[in-house]
Amino acid sequence: MNGQASPIRVAILGASGYTGAELVRLLARHPGVDIRALTADRKAGQTMAQAFPHLGGLDLPDLVRIEDLDFADIDLVFGCLPHGTMHGLVKRLPERVRVIDLSADFRLEDPAVYTEWYGLEHGATDLQPQAVYGLPELHRDAIRGARIVAGPGCYPTSVQIPLVPLARRGLIGLDDIIADSKSGVSGAGRAAKEANLHTEVSEGIHAYGVTRHRHVAEIEQGLRWATGRDVTVTFTPHLMPMNRGILSTIYVSLVEGVGVDDLRVALAEHYAGEPFVRVLPAGGVPATRHVRGANHVLIGVFPDRRPGHAIVICVEDNLVKGASGQLVQCMNVMYGFPETQGLEQLALFP
Amino acid sequence: MNGQASPIRVAILGASGYTGAELVRLLARHPGVDIRALTADRKAGQTMAQAFPHLGGLDLPDLVRIEDLDFADIDLVFGCLPHGTMHGLVKRLPERVRVIDLSADFRLEDPAVYTEWYGLEHGATDLQPQAVYGLPELHRDAIRGARIVAGPGCYPTSVQIPLVPLARRGLIGLDDIIADSKSGVSGAGRAAKEANLHTEVSEGIHAYGVTRHRHVAEIEQGLRWATGRDVTVTFTPHLMPMNRGILSTIYVSLVEGVGVDDLRVALAEHYAGEPFVRVLPAGGVPATRHVRGANHVLIGVFPDRRPGHAIVICVEDNLVKGASGQLVQCMNVMYGFPETQGLEQLALFP
Amino acid sequence: MNGQASPIRVAILGASGYTGAELVRLLARHPGVDIRALTADRKAGQTMAQAFPHLGGLDLPDLVRIEDLDFADIDLVFGCLPHGTMHGLVKRLPERVRVIDLSADFRLEDPAVYTEWYGLEHGATDLQPQAVYGLPELHRDAIRGARIVAGPGCYPTSVQIPLVPLARRGLIGLDDIIADSKSGVSGAGRAAKEANLHTEVSEGIHAYGVTRHRHVAEIEQGLRWATGRDVTVTFTPHLMPMNRGILSTIYVSLVEGVGVDDLRVALAEHYAGEPFVRVLPAGGVPATRHVRGANHVLIGVFPDRRPGHAIVICVEDNLVKGASGQLVQCMNVMYGFPETQGLEQLALFP
Amino acid sequence: MNGQASPIRVAILGASGYTGAELVRLLARHPGVDIRALTADRKAGQTMAQAFPHLGGLDLPDLVRIEDLDFADIDLVFGCLPHGTMHGLVKRLPERVRVIDLSADFRLEDPAVYTEWYGLEHGATDLQPQAVYGLPELHRDAIRGARIVAGPGCYPTSVQIPLVPLARRGLIGLDDIIADSKSGVSGAGRAAKEANLHTEVSEGIHAYGVTRHRHVAEIEQGLRWATGRDVTVTFTPHLMPMNRGILSTIYVSLVEGVGVDDLRVALAEHYAGEPFVRVLPAGGVPATRHVRGANHVLIGVFPDRRPGHAIVICVEDNLVKGASGQLVQCMNVMYGFPETQGLEQLALFP
Repeated sequence: MNGQASPIRVAILGASGYTGAELVRLLARHPGVDIRALTADRKAGQTMAQAFPHLGGLDLPDLVRIEDLDFADIDLVFGCLPHGTMHGLVKRLPERVRVIDLSADFRLEDPAVYTEWYGLEHGATDLQPQAVYGLPELHRDAIRGARIVAGPGCYPTSVQIPLVPLARRGLIGLDDIIADSKSGVSGAGRAAKEANLHTEVSEGIHAYGVTRHRHVAEIEQGLRWATGRDVTVTFTPHLMPMNRGILSTIYVSLVEGVGVDDLRVALAEHYAGEPFVRVLPAGGVPATRHVRGANHVLIGVFPDRRPGHAIVICVEDNLVKGASGQLVQCMNVMYGFPETQGLEQLALFP
Repeated sequence: MNGQASPIRVAILGASGYTGAELVRLLARHPGVDIRALTADRKAGQTMAQAFPHLGGLDLPDLVRIEDLDFADIDLVFGCLPHGTMHGLVKRLPERVRVIDLSADFRLEDPAVYTEWYGLEHGATDLQPQAVYGLPELHRDAIRGARIVAGPGCYPTSVQIPLVPLARRGLIGLDDIIADSKSGVSGAGRAAKEANLHTEVSEGIHAYGVTRHRHVAEIEQGLRWATGRDVTVTFTPHLMPMNRGILSTIYVSLVEGVGVDDLRVALAEHYAGEPFVRVLPAGGVPATRHVRGANHVLIGVFPDRRPGHAIVICVEDNLVKGASGQLVQCMNVMYGFPETQGLEQLALFP
Repeated sequence: MNGQASPIRVAILGASGYTGAELVRLLARHPGVDIRALTADRKAGQTMAQAFPHLGGLDLPDLVRIEDLDFADIDLVFGCLPHGTMHGLVKRLPERVRVIDLSADFRLEDPAVYTEWYGLEHGATDLQPQAVYGLPELHRDAIRGARIVAGPGCYPTSVQIPLVPLARRGLIGLDDIIADSKSGVSGAGRAAKEANLHTEVSEGIHAYGVTRHRHVAEIEQGLRWATGRDVTVTFTPHLMPMNRGILSTIYVSLVEGVGVDDLRVALAEHYAGEPFVRVLPAGGVPATRHVRGANHVLIGVFPDRRPGHAIVICVEDNLVKGASGQLVQCMNVMYGFPETQGLEQLALFP
Repeated sequence: MNGQASPIRVAILGASGYTGAELVRLLARHPGVDIRALTADRKAGQTMAQAFPHLGGLDLPDLVRIEDLDFADIDLVFGCLPHGTMHGLVKRLPERVRVIDLSADFRLEDPAVYTEWYGLEHGATDLQPQAVYGLPELHRDAIRGARIVAGPGCYPTSVQIPLVPLARRGLIGLDDIIADSKSGVSGAGRAAKEANLHTEVSEGIHAYGVTRHRHVAEIEQGLRWATGRDVTVTFTPHLMPMNRGILSTIYVSLVEGVGVDDLRVALAEHYAGEPFVRVLPAGGVPATRHVRGANHVLIGVFPDRRPGHAIVICVEDNLVKGASGQLVQCMNVMYGFPETQGLEQLALFP
């Protein structure tokens, strides 16, 4: 940490889920971090290697119930719990403890929007104004000094990274944005549900949450931040027979006088120097398998057959850049670590 | 068989590919058909069970080269060859022999459009006017008496079945149709290509042929037939890590005064009585795995978050309704068999 | 049906599981069967199309609780319930009603062995002697007149079909039989368990139940019936990242004077005329995908590098020949239908 | 790097295959290595990012033909070429250049055995005696000073690691060893073959090379080295519908007086301190997904139902510990790097 004497002491809440395990995978090799506590509810008492044998052989604390966690020796809390659980919890934390949360609880600045989409009262409206949206490429400065960082949703990351710079620069129409997204199964978590059995998911595809997936609120908020006006987006998620990866195919109209190449150039300029965003040259086709296990985002820009339109395709690993990797990136920003630390792994292919 | 004395004698050209094998699977149990000849180029001399062990145990003719095939005792030829091969071949067939072709060679009524998309001169412009587009739900009467039937492409089937009735009735806008399609790997055929290896395809997704996939010409032709005017469609195919299935997510605008439910009702009315098309009730979500191995198409109609728009989702098995099953259905129409004969199998799930 | 006036009236208990759905898939097209009742516990009140959309469009009774089922108009009950549930249930059935059960409850002739492996008292020791083991190729005559047929386990089917004829003829050693079996995930059923999620199962393999899988009792019973002596078998099941299929690789020693080809000849002779068992010629390699969705078993016999030994490989679809297809086959035998009726479908590949 | 002034300069021959790409993945983050040259035949002239987009964004040399490679500034050559190509090539290398080869060309000490299994004359019988078998856990000292290291086959690694210590200590019988192995598809390489298409491989399994897979020669050589006597092993490989991973289920007899736990203890003792081998406690079940992308081997030891026998299960990632990772490990040994350098990544799950 650039001169920090000792590693930051970290607790991961919800470590028996996939995003928790992915945090462990990334943080276990991070020289600035000491994983001090791992919580799990149903699996409390187990070792992490019992819950996730692929993490066996590491020197990790056992899983404990959150109630049994002492925050006195924790500097930073990672929240990998379901939405609705973090408001009350963060309120009870010592002021000194920073929080990077992956639930939706602090993502939406307007508590009414939170209630509309999540069906719950917002339990920490006093803290919400302190929360910063944790997409470093778009909100790096605010993240740096934040106490509470709200890690973005997996889909919203894959849509905002390509669209926000285009919308900000006024290159695309705002009334006919369509994001057709496709996600691997790990986004659904580790809960035992019939719908996510191998037998139910493999060798087939389907859309879900058509028109009413909660992530749309987050996408629209991001576009409002970028443009200063309300934007309504069509967003259709689909479940893919694979574990990792999100691909968003985004259909946009071009503002008068703007060409397809202008979009590519604008994105390339905006993300020049960013270690985790790669804008492909014309004709380059992003594939989720090229970022499997890595924190990278790939963007391709294509002409549309209809004049005045373009197609932007963005891929990420939903568990890395779409979740835990992005949290680690936020942590690096918050604590002054090199932004790529712990995130150097290349994609695993095949 | 409507009183026909003896089974029709069938030849399948290109039987060593997946669509050829799928024809055998369906026709082997069809009481009105006698499979007389199977051709293959590289695998000539092999038994069908060598080329496709899952078809072992049947009494099938061995694979021969097309040059060694005697059409004297053939009534009907199924073409499962690449485009560019059928024009010359059909010209040489006895007038008496009927043809159901799955290549693109007879699908496009305008030879110039064929040349534009396939880069080849049309080799049988004299025969093209006799060719009928083999989508029974939309062109049944013409198919009945046709000598040459052009089996539709897999993607165009999944887009035209939901869109043509809506376009015909003037319920949707024609200037902003977007079809975001997702296909299993079997659509790419059995040719040994690096891009289709298990290692390259599984656990990942990508778009391909963005803006310039050939099937768009066929989709636009179908919409022109339906509306009498030229239509330009945005069409983006994606490759899925599964073998069978196509899902097309289609974004449309609604003509003034038309609601989402009107689309569903119109489709339900149009396909009432059709054995292979099922329009799902509101909220019903089509999945490719629900039609795996079956000749069925499922359609779901959803509201779009943007007012005045709707989302139509259509699924099929690309090798059955998207290819060989549809050919068998055409044959049933042509020869007066019950239209479901040979196509009674239910979907295989899981 | 051999002159039977009307179709047999069938109830399927546990129709919301995969083996129940598979029975519906097969029986819905069987001309001698009328599906009168479908039971489910948690999903009672749903239509079958809600529980299994791939079976939509059929005219099926809704799912009811087993308590609400009236056996007065049922001729035959198919049991697709967990072990431990059928003993009491069969006792309460009218004597007139025949039963084909897929649980383990009636498979083991010795109640003590049942208790040893399943940890339960046998609840119908009076009925057990009437129960017939439902492997038609090995027990056809007994099945014909049986009132209670116990459908074999998926693994035991794949091991007994190749081994029983060899053991009966005294061609193989009985002290060193090893069956290394590999199964698709559907064998684990539709219960929502973390271990069977797509994320947990795909892209990886592992053994399970090493040394202590319950099916070993059934395999050893089959070999005892075949030889008149106790046999101990090594059996190791493995979970495969696929939905359907079992492949058993069986290592055997040859009795003095017996060669590898003798095994193949013996099996070919024994199964000559059997519609569902195919012994491959030398060099033929069985693959599960060649029987996907079909009721067939393929057997290959190979030399072992160690002299005096052989390797026998057997494949089946665990949901068809390893479960529901075999039940239908038993029903055909019991009611005098042609044995292949309802089971004519060819394998689905790819 | 133990005081070495500058990174070692490395060439990877056959970098357009999976093992070549995997080497790049691992070496690109290795502080002691400078990747100076990458060769490919068909793809010469391409950038590495064109051949393998997941490696885009790295500063790598373009692919060149091997003929165009200047060995003057190369210290170490990694061979990822097919067998039969390395004998001649190594002969032409400057004496100063060290070689770690993944082909079979230098694995078998007896040229006659090489010829028997590979059907080729051994083209460098003079060099063969210098070659060291590159399994660090078993041959570390010899590797340290070797000029030519022969990287073991993927299957032999998974069989020798568990068996060699047991055989050396005389705990197991040598006349009835059976290795039933299961491998992911990446072991077949990137060559475009029909048999390895997604459509041919997914959703199904089969054995291949029964009795006559070449790796058996290597396994038997390893056991001969361990015991001083000839050993014949039964080895049956199976192809799994997954990309990465090998699981070998090994059936052994116990020498009089030896118990199952003795095997586990012996292995645990032998591999104590080894960073990449983990012997699981009793009941621990190794799964390939727990080592996906990592250089680890997991071993489980189980009782067999037949008294006096045991089952040993070993898993690895065939592209890492079974191929490129082991090469990097050998390099670390040869050059005095910490043995885990470049190999610290944890497994990727799910």
